[in-house]
Amino acid sequence: MNKIYNPQPETWSSILKRPTQTFDDIETTVKGIFKEVQQKGDQAVLKYTSLFDGIVLENNIVTNEEIENSLNLVSEDLKEAIKLAKSNIEKFHTAQISSKIEIETTEGVICWQEKRPIQKVGLYIPGGSAPLFSTVLMLAIPAKIAGCKEIILCTPPDKQGKINPAILFAAQLCGVTKIYKIGGIQAIAAMTFGTESVDKVYKIFGPGNQFVTIAKQYATQLGVAIDMPAGPSELLVFADDSAVPSFVASDLLSQAEHGKDSQVILVTTSQNILNEVEKEIYKQLKKLPRKEIAEIAINNSVLIFLGSDKNALDLINEYSPEHFIICSNNEDYFINGIENAGSIFIGNYTPESAGDYASGTNHTLPTNGYSKSYSGVNLDSFLKAMTFQKITEKGISNIGKSIEIMAEAEGLLAHKMAVNLRLNKQKTNKYQP
Amino acid sequence: MNKIYNPQPETWSSILKRPTQTFDDIETTVKGIFKEVQQKGDQAVLKYTSLFDGIVLENNIVTNEEIENSLNLVSEDLKEAIKLAKSNIEKFHTAQISSKIEIETTEGVICWQEKRPIQKVGLYIPGGSAPLFSTVLMLAIPAKIAGCKEIILCTPPDKQGKINPAILFAAQLCGVTKIYKIGGIQAIAAMTFGTESVDKVYKIFGPGNQFVTIAKQYATQLGVAIDMPAGPSELLVFADDSAVPSFVASDLLSQAEHGKDSQVILVTTSQNILNEVEKEIYKQLKKLPRKEIAEIAINNSVLIFLGSDKNALDLINEYSPEHFIICSNNEDYFINGIENAGSIFIGNYTPESAGDYASGTNHTLPTNGYSKSYSGVNLDSFLKAMTFQKITEKGISNIGKSIEIMAEAEGLLAHKMAVNLRLNKQKTNKYQP
Repeated sequence: MNKIYNPQPETWSSILKRPTQTFDDIETTVKGIFKEVQQKGDQAVLKYTSLFDGIVLENNIVTNEEIENSLNLVSEDLKEAIKLAKSNIEKFHTAQISSKIEIETTEGVICWQEKRPIQKVGLYIPGGSAPLFSTVLMLAIPAKIAGCKEIILCTPPDKQGKINPAILFAAQLCGVTKIYKIGGIQAIAAMTFGTESVDKVYKIFGPGNQFVTIAKQYATQLGVAIDMPAGPSELLVFADDSAVPSFVASDLLSQAEHGKDSQVILVTTSQNILNEVEKEIYKQLKKLPRKEIAEIAINNSVLIFLGSDKNALDLINEYSPEHFIICSNNEDYFINGIENAGSIFIGNYTPESAGDYASGTNHTLPTNGYSKSYSGVNLDSFLKAMTFQKITEKGISNIGKSIEIMAEAEGLLAHKMAVNLRLNKQKTNKYQP
Repeated sequence: MNKIYNPQPETWSSILKRPTQTFDDIETTVKGIFKEVQQKGDQAVLKYTSLFDGIVLENNIVTNEEIENSLNLVSEDLKEAIKLAKSNIEKFHTAQISSKIEIETTEGVICWQEKRPIQKVGLYIPGGSAPLFSTVLMLAIPAKIAGCKEIILCTPPDKQGKINPAILFAAQLCGVTKIYKIGGIQAIAAMTFGTESVDKVYKIFGPGNQFVTIAKQYATQLGVAIDMPAGPSELLVFADDSAVPSFVASDLLSQAEHGKDSQVILVTTSQNILNEVEKEIYKQLKKLPRKEIAEIAINNSVLIFLGSDKNALDLINEYSPEHFIICSNNEDYFINGIENAGSIFIGNYTPESAGDYASGTNHTLPTNGYSKSYSGVNLDSFLKAMTFQKITEKGISNIGKSIEIMAEAEGLLAHKMAVNLRLNKQKTNKYQP
């Protein structure tokens, strides 16, 4: 592991540099597949499923029968665990429901803001080694609470043409309206354009590899919104002497096992903690089945010693981590001072795993420094704020003159006329429509 | 004007089709200028200012002296009008401040959401014939309320190297921290990468021509967020017999004068209104100084007659207008039923001009059908929601088992271990860090 002591602020950006990726050749692939899906619909989708997922399907749609059958394949223990997670996620996201905001800005000028659901949303759930049913919960539960009418889900089939039963269980539990056996670029293309079997959606959510990421980004050029750009997952832990080294090590390893490119950083004001955490990491690493993956990420990770909480906080804000764990005697300083982070975990008994699964917070979070400007997925991600205004005759007479002056100064005389006609009608009261 | 009577739903999408634009050649220009600004900083910016704006500047920054001088050039009337607008915009956006949302999802598991400001934001204000000081208000006021630390503004200089005084007045009034004489692609590039004189920002806001639009979209691939994608401005009016034809005509013309590509649509359930509005449009059109522009937009516009409020609402939701005016005896039906629109204006005395300038609502709104998935600019556009969680020993014992089961089912054993270590420590209470 890379250990860095008291780095000077001017070196932070190079120490904290994330791997940059270039996407030019992926982009060409993405555009090609999008074009084909747009032109040929399901035929193109099925072709790419055969090519990339190694299975020839006749139909993309998961049938009710398949869903029913799969429910028997999920253990009762797992069902109960998922239900507890669902309950907490539901509570936290229901608490985010906001009421109409209404204000009379000037007498007779009533303005309000209301949030209304995005009618059609698409959720993408990656396939591969780990069946991410937890991400189904994190996306479908707030979509349902928001009131989205159509909540479709795409996930790649395995080589037998099947979807992991836990994904199907979570999807039906959380109110997904249709499930498709489609993965990768072709899934994002299908949700962007619509096909014979897949409805076009207005916003696409969910994680994925770099092909999916580039496909989502391309979709935004074609009129579809996305949750956020994605990069490799990240964890930064701040620990002082109040931290338990074995706990900290286990949290860093949780992040490291996600992928070889996972970003893992420890910032500490304690030499002792730095050394103990490092020892614990290598001790625990041996026990992990995903050791090979975690080891590569750990070898690229950084342990940083800094002389003060202030320096630590400044560095953390510059990095802007996706996940941020605070184990400190001075925790309020970090809680109040953190400007950029996706989700924050406080204290020795708050592992990142809790937020990944069951505490209630969302685990779809901004990576790659995007916490500087993006929120993690939350209830509002499935809603859009609309504004309304209703102005009385009194109201327009109160603000009309100002509008006329401003419109004229901007050279927009029809804007002025629209107000002028209304003011004149009031003055003369003779106007006949 | 195109008049269409009782179109069948299957024809709506072609009737309502917006002009599509292809951007391939613009993209090449954008990428070239971005690369040069990234490599050469201010030198490249000044070069493109000279090339596109026709003025050789020594320095991009508007000095305090220039700001002071400009204040004398704005009439008292206009200053007062701007201050009234500011007061209303401030009231409406301050009302949008939301408090921390905190909930104990399970005993000992406390989760909360807080919104914190995006630290550095960039506002783009187009130049050209109309000095859009109103857009300065719409962007800088919520940025200031949100608590953004740096609020920089870029706008192109005129051929004398000057910025319109009203823009400078509005910017200093609303708390913009730095103003730059930079326009177009080079402005977006400068805010994306930073230069010697321009700070890199985390999110870019504001309207612009297609070059600016493509540049903003490209910026999102380079780690910067943007407010929303942009297209030509739009207005859809629904009017029944309760509407005043001259008012409706003046609103449609307000939209039409924005640009030749402005989208203007009337939907009505009244033959009489359709005819009267058309007559009024041609009557009022003659009086407009921007007649040539408005006429082209009006000739491309559509007047649609539909037999019922239900059909009208369905069509309006399919179109998803940026601005939507409701003049109807049955206004609640439309207010409650509108699913997709940026800003909604209700009644005969609520012209779009009011929202453009002074009612208090924001005028930076989703065009091009994006109101299906995007909010208009609002206070939250300058904030990001962050989640926090703090779990007690009791809390982790309540949810720990569920996390372990789910982590194991996803094949993430380090995630399980992070919880397991904490549960074990509690059980044995012998663990030594």
